[in-house]
Amino acid sequence: MAAFNFNKLVIFGVGLIGGSLARALRERAGLAGEVVGVGRSVKTIERALELGVIDSAASLDDDIALGKALAGADFVLLAAPVAQTEPLLTRIAPFLDASTVVTDAGSTKSDVVAAARAALGAKVAQFVPGHPIAGRESSGVDAALPDLYVGRNVVLCPLAENPAQAVERVEAMWLATGASVHRMSEAQHDRVFAAVSHLPHVASFALVEQILEAPDATLKFSFAAGGFRDFTRIAASSPEMWRDVCIANRAALLAELDAYTTVLARFRAAIDASDGAALEQAFARSRVARTEWQERGGAKPGETPAK
Amino acid sequence: MAAFNFNKLVIFGVGLIGGSLARALRERAGLAGEVVGVGRSVKTIERALELGVIDSAASLDDDIALGKALAGADFVLLAAPVAQTEPLLTRIAPFLDASTVVTDAGSTKSDVVAAARAALGAKVAQFVPGHPIAGRESSGVDAALPDLYVGRNVVLCPLAENPAQAVERVEAMWLATGASVHRMSEAQHDRVFAAVSHLPHVASFALVEQILEAPDATLKFSFAAGGFRDFTRIAASSPEMWRDVCIANRAALLAELDAYTTVLARFRAAIDASDGAALEQAFARSRVARTEWQERGGAKPGETPAK
Repeated sequence: MAAFNFNKLVIFGVGLIGGSLARALRERAGLAGEVVGVGRSVKTIERALELGVIDSAASLDDDIALGKALAGADFVLLAAPVAQTEPLLTRIAPFLDASTVVTDAGSTKSDVVAAARAALGAKVAQFVPGHPIAGRESSGVDAALPDLYVGRNVVLCPLAENPAQAVERVEAMWLATGASVHRMSEAQHDRVFAAVSHLPHVASFALVEQILEAPDATLKFSFAAGGFRDFTRIAASSPEMWRDVCIANRAALLAELDAYTTVLARFRAAIDASDGAALEQAFARSRVARTEWQERGGAKPGETPAK
Repeated sequence: MAAFNFNKLVIFGVGLIGGSLARALRERAGLAGEVVGVGRSVKTIERALELGVIDSAASLDDDIALGKALAGADFVLLAAPVAQTEPLLTRIAPFLDASTVVTDAGSTKSDVVAAARAALGAKVAQFVPGHPIAGRESSGVDAALPDLYVGRNVVLCPLAENPAQAVERVEAMWLATGASVHRMSEAQHDRVFAAVSHLPHVASFALVEQILEAPDATLKFSFAAGGFRDFTRIAASSPEMWRDVCIANRAALLAELDAYTTVLARFRAAIDASDGAALEQAFARSRVARTEWQERGGAKPGETPAK
């Protein structure tokens, strides 16, 4: 049993992430609280009701309905695109009970924290920034699963203003879904994901772009094989989402990108000088690290790119 | 039936590539010629004899045995590391019958052509450079398969000196294995594979290297997920082999690497300027190209990185 009250959860953006949290708390943790869905898309909300993922719905534009939805909520989860964090929290703020804890599922955190401070003022103490590292190829509430978070990592980036109890409640909620919970600062979070997720996406998009620009692009694509396939799988990711991530995590991503081009420049110099020893040493280091990472468990087979 | 004589094939380097060619011609094409294996490793040669992949063996160091092995050969295949091309051809040249066609399986071609010209002199007319795009996770003669080349591409880079008939014979031999055969210049070959194979390997090694150099490397690896997994799968490739490929294809690889860092610099500028439109346009172009490539057949599921 999870050591927290679960009488009411309000989800802003009932898709894969929000829907899976609701299903996990109900179907996996056996918690029987009420789940309210709020979203701009009537279709999505109706489908979530139809699937039983949420019990009731409220319109974001209706003060009375929104106030009713938020009254007495234990948890609020923001699972909408990161760029909507500030307008959503601004809208929510006036209706927020003092006992409600708000968290989010955004894939970047420094920008979310800045948005939360701007929108909530002193009430930012009620906001515990979070990032569940989970996904599937498919999205939307139909793809929501009660087991989506089992064995996955959730990162929380507590604020100095957060009471310990608020952080513990969000932690307990995620633990009840079967996830592991980790804490780090929002700056550390953004550095980690810039390095292991955002930069690989940019580098993969860039490789396809480079081939496309070549006069012999068609010939090149026709001989692309397994190495190209693996390296560029993530270049088929959503352009809109990755545009937003790149801009939301700009500072950390630029730092990682610069570090990456520094390594590429060093490799270039070694290739230019036919310095086989330097190349072999570096490649061998990478091979060992990559192999050890895989042996420690790597990423789960069904796990999609971390956002 | 293949339209070429197959009385004798001599393979230098009886591993996955050479062994699979022998097995394909015998077991798939039903050709009954003699297969002779030549290699430095007694163990490999003995294993190839044991498996019935070759009928007899010759030592590279024994003039009489080598002369006997090469006498009356229809085909010679070099399937040893590319760096051994020049010494091997120098050793073979004095024993080469005028009717023998020599080809190779090297993953780079400009360097192989230069080595062949240096080693063979006028006899370079008998050498038709080739590159079968096939591989498996496992290597060595035990991994050799009669169907390895079915549906795969083989690139031939005919020389101006090659008689049309010599090229046609090598083409017919590869067609008999079930492969598709394509012709292009060695410079074009090296540009294509620098772009779709060699550069992705270098870029993947570089990403792991960059994370390794960070003070928070352990934390970063612990949160690496599906995007990292796909992007860096090829960073577990053989450091020795990729060292050799980088140096052998240096000129073409440097050109592709420079084009790549130019695209990365453009992406960097767009991220720095928060130019969402430019990022989304580029990412969308890549996504379409990558998706169309996959829909046209992509790489076969079992296909390892093109060398």
